[in-house]
Amino acid sequence: MPRPSLKEQIVVAALETLHRKGFNATSVQDITDAAEAPKGSFYNHFGSKEDLAVEALDRYWQRILGSLKSLSDEKVPPLPRLRAYFSRLSRIASAADYSSGCFVGNMSVEMSNQSRMVRERLALILAAWTRAITSCVREAQADGSVRQDADAKIIAEFLLNSWEGAVLRSKVDKDAVPLDTFEKVTFDLLLK
Amino acid sequence: MPRPSLKEQIVVAALETLHRKGFNATSVQDITDAAEAPKGSFYNHFGSKEDLAVEALDRYWQRILGSLKSLSDEKVPPLPRLRAYFSRLSRIASAADYSSGCFVGNMSVEMSNQSRMVRERLALILAAWTRAITSCVREAQADGSVRQDADAKIIAEFLLNSWEGAVLRSKVDKDAVPLDTFEKVTFDLLLK
Repeated sequence: MPRPSLKEQIVVAALETLHRKGFNATSVQDITDAAEAPKGSFYNHFGSKEDLAVEALDRYWQRILGSLKSLSDEKVPPLPRLRAYFSRLSRIASAADYSSGCFVGNMSVEMSNQSRMVRERLALILAAWTRAITSCVREAQADGSVRQDADAKIIAEFLLNSWEGAVLRSKVDKDAVPLDTFEKVTFDLLLK
Repeated sequence: MPRPSLKEQIVVAALETLHRKGFNATSVQDITDAAEAPKGSFYNHFGSKEDLAVEALDRYWQRILGSLKSLSDEKVPPLPRLRAYFSRLSRIASAADYSSGCFVGNMSVEMSNQSRMVRERLALILAAWTRAITSCVREAQADGSVRQDADAKIIAEFLLNSWEGAVLRSKVDKDAVPLDTFEKVTFDLLLK
């Protein structure tokens, strides 16, 4: 296997470190140390820590896109598919001991006020994520398994935002209750 | 009017600065500058920036408690009272141009991994906030205006967490859509 490029090593280390510690608590040195890269190499590849944060977000979005494939898997009916999608996200949060949260949510809270560039990337990611959920909700409305008295996009926006809120709460309480509550309320009460 | 004590000036300035910029982007010097206090005075009153963050959270909680009074106002039926409560929070977010978000939500995301002391205070605040909403939901279930097929506490937890998620999204999108969507989906679809 070829050795990953130095730039690649830095992006991978940045995503892990920024996700765990946040933007402002992470120095360029923290990232280059984690990447086992010389600190001086950083500015050969990135204009700023903000530029790198955008690259880390893009990398995280690639992971989300990977998980979103299951949301368009037509072998599974759309409502169970949607529920399984959020269950899977819960298992990922649980495996991380509810400590890191969602990198998109974390950056949304920490950086929206601080960096226009990061905020605009977050807006694109959240819009694309919403569209993927909207498609699945729309399919579920079409087969009659989800209520049809509300626009699929409105429901999808609400689901994604509420999910982010549940993850936020699970970071504080360090347990699955907020995620279980999200699943129970949305799937057993709201969508029916 | 008596001049506020130096400690009081620092707490007020800290809440404003930490709410707007976050914990790690704010230095002790930023806070003492905002308070027009000598930097050296900080450690006469606070053991650390973390200690001050907890005091700022307590101060913010006092504000939340003030707004929560309307949630137990028996002159208004419980469901319109609950809706008016969240509408009022939306107006506060709008007046701040969706830029600062909720201080409790911001600290939850930024500090849960970094400070056990801050996280434990956040857990207490979120639990007390949930209890206030639970009481109002329970009243609304008792008068038949909210669905009775779910525990009031589960619904209240979901509402508060989803609200925090909506505020998070409104920080990114810089508009009211996530807050309007929260209100529409919870009050027109979920609770009925």
